[in-house]
Amino acid sequence: MEYIFGADVGGSSTKLGVFDREGKLIAERTVPTVTSGGGERIIPDIARAVKSLSGELEPGAKILGMGMAVPGPVEAGGMVNGCVNLGWGRKDAAGEMAVLTDFPVFLLNDANAAALGEVWQGAARNCGGGAFMVTLGTGVGGAFIFGEQVVNGANGAGGEIGHMTVNPREIEQCTCGRRGCLEQYVSTRGMVRTAKEQMGLHPESTLLSCDELSGKIIFEQALAGDEAAIKTVRLTADILGQALACAAAICDPEVFIIGGGLSGGGDYYLEQIVESYRRSVMYPCRETKFVIASLGHQAGMYGAARFAMGFLKGV
Amino acid sequence: MEYIFGADVGGSSTKLGVFDREGKLIAERTVPTVTSGGGERIIPDIARAVKSLSGELEPGAKILGMGMAVPGPVEAGGMVNGCVNLGWGRKDAAGEMAVLTDFPVFLLNDANAAALGEVWQGAARNCGGGAFMVTLGTGVGGAFIFGEQVVNGANGAGGEIGHMTVNPREIEQCTCGRRGCLEQYVSTRGMVRTAKEQMGLHPESTLLSCDELSGKIIFEQALAGDEAAIKTVRLTADILGQALACAAAICDPEVFIIGGGLSGGGDYYLEQIVESYRRSVMYPCRETKFVIASLGHQAGMYGAARFAMGFLKGV
Repeated sequence: MEYIFGADVGGSSTKLGVFDREGKLIAERTVPTVTSGGGERIIPDIARAVKSLSGELEPGAKILGMGMAVPGPVEAGGMVNGCVNLGWGRKDAAGEMAVLTDFPVFLLNDANAAALGEVWQGAARNCGGGAFMVTLGTGVGGAFIFGEQVVNGANGAGGEIGHMTVNPREIEQCTCGRRGCLEQYVSTRGMVRTAKEQMGLHPESTLLSCDELSGKIIFEQALAGDEAAIKTVRLTADILGQALACAAAICDPEVFIIGGGLSGGGDYYLEQIVESYRRSVMYPCRETKFVIASLGHQAGMYGAARFAMGFLKGV
Repeated sequence: MEYIFGADVGGSSTKLGVFDREGKLIAERTVPTVTSGGGERIIPDIARAVKSLSGELEPGAKILGMGMAVPGPVEAGGMVNGCVNLGWGRKDAAGEMAVLTDFPVFLLNDANAAALGEVWQGAARNCGGGAFMVTLGTGVGGAFIFGEQVVNGANGAGGEIGHMTVNPREIEQCTCGRRGCLEQYVSTRGMVRTAKEQMGLHPESTLLSCDELSGKIIFEQALAGDEAAIKTVRLTADILGQALACAAAICDPEVFIIGGGLSGGGDYYLEQIVESYRRSVMYPCRETKFVIASLGHQAGMYGAARFAMGFLKGV
C-alpha cells in the first residue's frame, strides 16, 4: 500500500498523521514542540515520529511524501519566511525534513492547511466552488481555497482577513503594528475587550464576577441572558459579518467556514454572523452557506496531507 | 493554420477578433449592438461577422472555438444570468452561438475577460502570482485572476469590488439598491459627486465654470492646481486605495491593474492610490505592483480568446 504523511506544526505540539491514498487516517501521533535553540530540534523530532509511525505500517509499505503546515508565511518557492511561535526565521523546512525522511516534503501555511482539510474531509466537504475559512482564536487567521487549490498569495498573505482594516479610527495598536484590523475585534482578545467595555455600561452584568473572561464564558452568559454578554456577541458578530461580506465581493466563495476557539459559540454565534453578513453583502451572494469547522485540531494535519497528494497525483 | 475567436459583447458594440494559436491578433471587426426586441439580433449579428472574418483567412484555415465576454454574471454552468445592457434575461448565449458557428463557444464575464486579457498580453503580462483588476468607469467592475484562471465566484460575483461596502453610513442609494458601495465613490459618477461637494467648499474653483464635469476635466484641473479638483482626486484615491488594501488581505495578488475611463488619470492618480493603499495594507503586501491597463477597449476581446484557449489546449 501507498501512504502520505500530514503534519501540522504548532507552537506547543505537532499533530502528525499517516493517510492511505483514499484519504483514510491510518494512525496519528502528537509530537511536543521544543522551541528553545531557535527551534532546531523541531524537524528532527518530527522526523523521528515519522519513522516510528512508518514502522507500524505493513512490510513493504511505500511512503510517497509528506505535507507540512507551519504557523507562518510560506513563500511561493516553498521557503518558510519566519515562524515566531517556533523560533524560526527564514528556513528551508521542507528541504531539511526531506533529507531526514528521504521522501518529498511540501510546505504550506497552517491556516491554509486547516481550510484545505475542512474542504477535503470536514465541514465543507465536496465544495467545488471555493471556500473561505476564518479561524477565530488568540489571533484571526483565514484562507481561501479555490477549487482544491490554496490561494497562498504573492506574499503569502492570501486569506489573511485578520489584518484587513475594518476601523480606520482605532487608536489601539494591533499585534501587526497597524490599527483597526479585524483581529482587534473578533479574536478572543478582541471579544474580551468589547465585553469589558460593555461591563462598564452594564454594572449589573454577571461578567463582572468572573475571574477571567473568555469567549466560552461570554457565550454562556449571553445565552443565560446577560445584557453585556449579549451585546458583546452581537457587536463582534456584526463586525465579522461585514468583513466576510467584503471577502465575498472579492472571491465569492460557495461556503464560509468558521473555525478556531470562538467557533464554540456554535449556531447562536453563527446566526448573528450570517445576519450581519446578509445586511452587508451584495445581492448575488446573500445565500452563501456558512458552516462551523468540524475537524478541530486535526484540520491542519488533514489539509497538509491533501496538499502533498496534489503534488503526488501522478506518482 | 488554427485560429480562435474572441468577442467582447457590449451595450453599444461588440469587439470581435480572430487570433492564431500563438495569440497574435490576425484581424478584428466591430459589430454594432442592437438591443431592441430583447437583444435577439445580437448573437446572429456577431455570428455573421464571425463568418465574414473567417472568409478572410487562408483556405483550409481551422477555427477551434470562440470565447465570448458578456456584461453580466455568468453561472458556473456557462449560462448568462441577466445582461441588462443587452436586454438579455437568463440565456444560453454560448449554446446559441455554437449552433450558428459550428464550433465550441465559452462564456465569461466582461470584467473577468478584460483582466485575463491584461494578464495575457497587456499591462500585467507574465504575472504568475495573481492579478486583481479594477475597472473605473460609469460603474466599477473588478476581477481576480489566479494563475491564469478566472475566479468567477460561486455566484458570478468574484472580483466585484465595486459593490463592497466602504461606508455603512452612506444615505444615498447605489445602483445595486444598497448603500455605501465602493462604486458610489470611485466611479465617474462618484468622482463627479465628490467634486460637486468640493465646489461648494471652494467657491473660487475653476470647476464651477465647466458645463459638464467628467473625470478628464477633474484630473486636468487638479493638475492645473485647482484646490477642489485636487481634493476630489485625493479623496477618491484614498477610498480606492483602502478598498484595494482589503482585497490584498483576501487574495494577495502580485499586481493590481487599474483600468476603465478614470485610469486616464495616469501616474498622477495612480501614485495617490498607491499611497493610500500602502497606508492601509498589512505589511507583507506593501510592495505589491500597480499598473495602468494597456489594452484599452481590446482587453475583453483578448481575454475572451485566451479563455477559450484554456479549454482548447488539448485540441
